Amino acid sequence: MTENNEFNSIMTDLAVEARDMAVERTGGEISGVSVEEEDKEIAKITRIEVLNQAASKKISKPPGNYITIESESLRQTNPQIHQELSGVLAAEINNLIDYPALTQNPTQMPTILVIGLGNWNATPDALGPQVVHHLLVTRHIYNSAEPESRRGIRSVCALAPGVLGLTGIETAEIIKGVVDRVKPNLIIAIDALAARESERLASTLQISDTGIYPGSGVGKRRIGITKKDMGVPVIAMGMPTVINSVNIVNDTIEAISQNHNINLNLSQKKQTQKQVIENILQPFLGDMIVAPKGIDKLIRDTSRIVAGGINIALHPDVETENVSFYLQ
Amino acid sequence: MTENNEFNSIMTDLAVEARDMAVERTGGEISGVSVEEEDKEIAKITRIEVLNQAASKKISKPPGNYITIESESLRQTNPQIHQELSGVLAAEINNLIDYPALTQNPTQMPTILVIGLGNWNATPDALGPQVVHHLLVTRHIYNSAEPESRRGIRSVCALAPGVLGLTGIETAEIIKGVVDRVKPNLIIAIDALAARESERLASTLQISDTGIYPGSGVGKRRIGITKKDMGVPVIAMGMPTVINSVNIVNDTIEAISQNHNINLNLSQKKQTQKQVIENILQPFLGDMIVAPKGIDKLIRDTSRIVAGGINIALHPDVETENVSFYLQ
Amino acid sequence: MTENNEFNSIMTDLAVEARDMAVERTGGEISGVSVEEEDKEIAKITRIEVLNQAASKKISKPPGNYITIESESLRQTNPQIHQELSGVLAAEINNLIDYPALTQNPTQMPTILVIGLGNWNATPDALGPQVVHHLLVTRHIYNSAEPESRRGIRSVCALAPGVLGLTGIETAEIIKGVVDRVKPNLIIAIDALAARESERLASTLQISDTGIYPGSGVGKRRIGITKKDMGVPVIAMGMPTVINSVNIVNDTIEAISQNHNINLNLSQKKQTQKQVIENILQPFLGDMIVAPKGIDKLIRDTSRIVAGGINIALHPDVETENVSFYLQ
Amino acid sequence: MTENNEFNSIMTDLAVEARDMAVERTGGEISGVSVEEEDKEIAKITRIEVLNQAASKKISKPPGNYITIESESLRQTNPQIHQELSGVLAAEINNLIDYPALTQNPTQMPTILVIGLGNWNATPDALGPQVVHHLLVTRHIYNSAEPESRRGIRSVCALAPGVLGLTGIETAEIIKGVVDRVKPNLIIAIDALAARESERLASTLQISDTGIYPGSGVGKRRIGITKKDMGVPVIAMGMPTVINSVNIVNDTIEAISQNHNINLNLSQKKQTQKQVIENILQPFLGDMIVAPKGIDKLIRDTSRIVAGGINIALHPDVETENVSFYLQ
Repeated sequence: MTENNEFNSIMTDLAVEARDMAVERTGGEISGVSVEEEDKEIAKITRIEVLNQAASKKISKPPGNYITIESESLRQTNPQIHQELSGVLAAEINNLIDYPALTQNPTQMPTILVIGLGNWNATPDALGPQVVHHLLVTRHIYNSAEPESRRGIRSVCALAPGVLGLTGIETAEIIKGVVDRVKPNLIIAIDALAARESERLASTLQISDTGIYPGSGVGKRRIGITKKDMGVPVIAMGMPTVINSVNIVNDTIEAISQNHNINLNLSQKKQTQKQVIENILQPFLGDMIVAPKGIDKLIRDTSRIVAGGINIALHPDVETENVSFYLQ
Repeated sequence: MTENNEFNSIMTDLAVEARDMAVERTGGEISGVSVEEEDKEIAKITRIEVLNQAASKKISKPPGNYITIESESLRQTNPQIHQELSGVLAAEINNLIDYPALTQNPTQMPTILVIGLGNWNATPDALGPQVVHHLLVTRHIYNSAEPESRRGIRSVCALAPGVLGLTGIETAEIIKGVVDRVKPNLIIAIDALAARESERLASTLQISDTGIYPGSGVGKRRIGITKKDMGVPVIAMGMPTVINSVNIVNDTIEAISQNHNINLNLSQKKQTQKQVIENILQPFLGDMIVAPKGIDKLIRDTSRIVAGGINIALHPDVETENVSFYLQ
Repeated sequence: MTENNEFNSIMTDLAVEARDMAVERTGGEISGVSVEEEDKEIAKITRIEVLNQAASKKISKPPGNYITIESESLRQTNPQIHQELSGVLAAEINNLIDYPALTQNPTQMPTILVIGLGNWNATPDALGPQVVHHLLVTRHIYNSAEPESRRGIRSVCALAPGVLGLTGIETAEIIKGVVDRVKPNLIIAIDALAARESERLASTLQISDTGIYPGSGVGKRRIGITKKDMGVPVIAMGMPTVINSVNIVNDTIEAISQNHNINLNLSQKKQTQKQVIENILQPFLGDMIVAPKGIDKLIRDTSRIVAGGINIALHPDVETENVSFYLQ
Repeated sequence: MTENNEFNSIMTDLAVEARDMAVERTGGEISGVSVEEEDKEIAKITRIEVLNQAASKKISKPPGNYITIESESLRQTNPQIHQELSGVLAAEINNLIDYPALTQNPTQMPTILVIGLGNWNATPDALGPQVVHHLLVTRHIYNSAEPESRRGIRSVCALAPGVLGLTGIETAEIIKGVVDRVKPNLIIAIDALAARESERLASTLQISDTGIYPGSGVGKRRIGITKKDMGVPVIAMGMPTVINSVNIVNDTIEAISQNHNINLNLSQKKQTQKQVIENILQPFLGDMIVAPKGIDKLIRDTSRIVAGGINIALHPDVETENVSFYLQ
């Protein structure tokens, strides 16, 4: 999950939520933020572009592209639909990748490094490592493969580096070290996200080209999984698996205010209502997680959908119709 | 986790919380409820007895004994303290077992059936099955064991029957079927519990002699894991692993009321404030669980403590000093 | 895995191997054993019937029907083929079930109890519990379901009773107790099997109508999961996941004899060559298992195929085309 | 597990077995190999030094030190003994570490990188990752820790890089990349090993200062986890979890030869008996693993013993008496 920095002080990793909150707050569209929506049969796609620093400050997300795929079917057990969702995901991933620009000359094939962020041993945080587990990796056989086979696959490698608390090493440091050896032309980083609204959990995928800062802050300035720090383009993908308890309480109080037509605004002096709630909740809820029931199964299913989407996006031979065949 | 019936409409499985709430509500001690507290170095023990039906109604718990062991050390990684907690737990378990009364004549040795309620595959609900996993079972070797060895152990067997959603069979029906064949003289049932207050999570053990109704209701009247339905005494044990989101919001609103000295009472006509909150939360929080971070490790550790406590309580040869030696 | 009794002294749970060995030994067909083979595109099916006690002694398997489905595709990661294998399996399961005879009158719908034998926590022995995990169970909602829905499903319940070493209770005793309460009209029991030949591992499914004796012997006479002991028909299903190390050595010595054209017959006085080998191996191999590499994934995949096959066989609404949709 | 290169053509990762085989073959001590044995109450320790290249060729192990700790107690469930074994292990680890030489000046504290080789998802290969899981890592808090606390701990970090088949990257490449960023002064690499004799399984620990080549070969020359390739000293540790099936058969045939006093020597022309057996076994046993029953539990227990040993060796504040307290 991303760190609690200036960019997610509003406590959501989703640009679509951050933008909705900014709209609510200001009562109108945000200049410098373009939004495009598309309704597909099985998913709603929202493509947000944060065009400049001014807009970035307003919605607390770095400039760049954020694509959200929303589908209730992510939660259902329907392999047919899951397969189609992998296809939708693949198309949006490829929207953000400029393949010819990855390598200096068009005959050179790019190498892609997929990073599974998060902790194997903590269910809601295991999305990234589980995606890596299901992924089709080919780099170790790519060069010795027949030229004909090579046309159908790209060179893909993967790493699940663990989390700072288990390794003692900043996750981005581990990745930078591996990047320096492997010299990939593109990084795709997967992570479990935190959302603001519970209905987003396990029903939304976000893809962005802005990179990601893994883990929780420990004070000093660190490097990120970003184009600037890694030297190659970074696609970040994720799905919300937890929500913040502060949001639950805040939302309930707001719903109560509306339903009961009473003014419950708890803002105080320099504190927003949310900060008031956070101060009260911290002592006894700081160590809680709020996750969907059945999170074990949800992570299991969606990690296959995401791995499938990446496989389709990266390997010409993998198509929506045969995606399950290539899942490890 | 216990069903949502008349006895836990107040949404806690802990008698100690139910009693505190009744005291708060009525502003005084509850007649018919005796409370005894003991402070040990590593744990605080509260022994509550619900003496009659009138008292039972007031605190929404069946008449009988409820022992609570509270210790922050349950959450810490300290094998030495864990061992001592197993010893404390064993002593309290044995407080509720009248061994001579279990069998008709004193030379006959009792057989004890330990039931691990809950779902292997859902982390916060896996306490019961994990306790069974670590338990020392002996019934299959008891009769062929040398008389001398037999003096040091009791005949113990165990079952993790699963949950209704996975088996299609009422859990108590499965147990009743096994009881009819095995004819144990005592049942000990372990379950993950729901608490009202987050600080109880993974820091409180409850032991009672009132039995337990496993799982969530599906309409028709069912049998329970109780002396009445099983025909033998039942000791129920558990530890809270989740809290109800309604309680979080309710507690926060109450804390806000106090801190800000404003009246936020949301009770309406025939609805308590909690019911108002529940109605608002249900649509978007009904499928959430609120559990401690690191719940995987907490369940792993405490299941060993509980299994150790049962081993010490039941087998004369197992003592606090050597309890780890017998953990499976 | 089945016990080491008179019926598998030849150390295979597969009738097809037992029959092959008898043929090799006697040099001709075994009277009283009928064999029918069918080659399908994705599987070879062998239907063996042991017609009488004399034949039963010769091949060391109780009289009855044994169907073997052999397919290399069981080991491959191909969801499309896996789906088709579930369909093939379903057809053979239904070959052995006489639905009208299950209930006394044709309007009464039968209840089927599926038993997952084996140990959750020992990978090669976890097939049964994992099948139960994926199974569609309906009994708890069957009676309250609309008559129309009820036409598409049958009442199915399931249990993973554990193993004697973990429960202290004979597995068949647990099942008998549950059968007495639930009163099913049919039992389907799934177990991991031991094969003689390594190429059978994870590539063969066996279905029989002769029942099964779970676990390893502990001396005294016990009840089995058989029609005689349970009072209702029993279908036993399984897949070999381990081979016996004695067989490996024995087969190698035989291969050496043939390849090198030397006589290596090690039979002695009253001991067969295999017994000689067993005596030598026991001290240092008695506690070994010989399993395929990647057994974790093989169990995971095949448990879904088997659960799918049972779902198709039992529920009219589940068909080969939509089988994945109903997997839990 | 180590690669199948010139140094383990004899199919054991244990120097103690390699040396015994050389002694058997040549009928006497091997010059250039010094052996020192010490019997402790709970373990037998053998310290082998391979002094030169000539000796290295004879026993097929690189020159350097190999310490073997043999103890049946590794397989038993006895936390007290496990604790003592961690202490024994720690002492032998520290025998191979020259702390003052790790850093250029004595006031600079060394950073140690622990590598858990192997595959999380394949039980017998999961020793390395599980040791990392239990390890006390401190590097991320070391610099911000009080000077007083710092005296009691060393700066330790850890990584479980995965296996080539899952990452597509040579494991040593990943490690080299991380080493270049983290700049540790020492590497400790843990791996599951293959032994020749089944009684070694889960009863022997080996520590060496010669480094390790992870994974199976894929043709081209690769870098190793060695002082030469990593630029810092490397301690390699491991425990055998599997044996080679060729060895089982070979050993049985030899035992048969002895017991029956017949000549079964199967060597042919240019093939040793073992090669003959390997050729016969390969088609049907190449994909098998031979592991102890209960391997899941053995890996779980011994990974804690090894992590405890490393914790004691590296951190002055961790002692044998309190080792469990620091296990994660």
